[in-house]
Amino acid sequence: MSRSPGRKQENHKISRELFVLTYGALVAQLCKDYEKDEDVNACLDRMGYSIGIRLIDDFLARSAVKKCRSYSETADMIAQVAFKMYLGVTPSVSCSSATGNEFSLILDKNPLVDFVEELPAERASLCYCNLLCGVIRGALEMVHLAAEVTFLQDRLKGDAVTEIGITFLRKPEDRKHRRNK
Amino acid sequence: MSRSPGRKQENHKISRELFVLTYGALVAQLCKDYEKDEDVNACLDRMGYSIGIRLIDDFLARSAVKKCRSYSETADMIAQVAFKMYLGVTPSVSCSSATGNEFSLILDKNPLVDFVEELPAERASLCYCNLLCGVIRGALEMVHLAAEVTFLQDRLKGDAVTEIGITFLRKPEDRKHRRNK
Repeated sequence: MSRSPGRKQENHKISRELFVLTYGALVAQLCKDYEKDEDVNACLDRMGYSIGIRLIDDFLARSAVKKCRSYSETADMIAQVAFKMYLGVTPSVSCSSATGNEFSLILDKNPLVDFVEELPAERASLCYCNLLCGVIRGALEMVHLAAEVTFLQDRLKGDAVTEIGITFLRKPEDRKHRRNK
Repeated sequence: MSRSPGRKQENHKISRELFVLTYGALVAQLCKDYEKDEDVNACLDRMGYSIGIRLIDDFLARSAVKKCRSYSETADMIAQVAFKMYLGVTPSVSCSSATGNEFSLILDKNPLVDFVEELPAERASLCYCNLLCGVIRGALEMVHLAAEVTFLQDRLKGDAVTEIGITFLRKPEDRKHRRNK
């Protein structure tokens, strides 16, 4: 049935709707499993991390990107290549610290919440899309970049945009210094 | 950031890898939640059903298909239009009963198990992809077609192919008869 012989030429795309509804089922299941929103958020982050550390190989193979020279380049790569490739959207990027290690990915539209109207009142602290933070954190760790990744704004909670904050935990200078020792 | 103004023109595709890994996280979570494979299978089927009854609207809107005149046409539609649209693969279809209400969708390759090598020994009865059966069942129910949908063969269990069996529970003649009353 396959129309192309090699894996690389296969159709790597599926419908976003099926993914979004399946993700919704996952979050709903975790909400059944855990009473506290914080526990659901932590579980989504852990699951995302496990996904990220596996997805990075796929990303490096398919994107054929070269090594990033700065945190700024890395943030742009996540937004313009990775988000585009995996979610079909391109967040805008802004650097949010003078030290140059904090970035925001700003999504006007979050494809993961297509079918979600609003969070139920009793789930006000739920970070519905927290899996994404874990994915980014896990993928970055596999290219030796430790980072904290969290939602800073969320349209599901009434914010104007959805904003994912990435704080890189070591400076490039530190890493270079260590390598030169 | 959006490059197209209307929802219909948006990019509805996302990466299969992210979906497959997220689905894997869902199954893993259910395996934590339920000791018995049968309970995991039933839960996946229920989740799929909930997805199917929502996905059908998206399918009808995007595919612009006309009403199917027979079970055979319906089975072909599921394989050639729905599977292609949502999973990027096209199963072959065979009719497996003289009464014309039993069909098999045969997948040489199941995109949902890309990262799964084999089921753990203690999960030998797990229908890993059972969500799909629920999705088909739910979607069919919304177009007034009652059906039983189950895995008949599964490559994850050592079978040569993956085969989904669809048994339509009422004949077209019955429905026509009822309408003419």
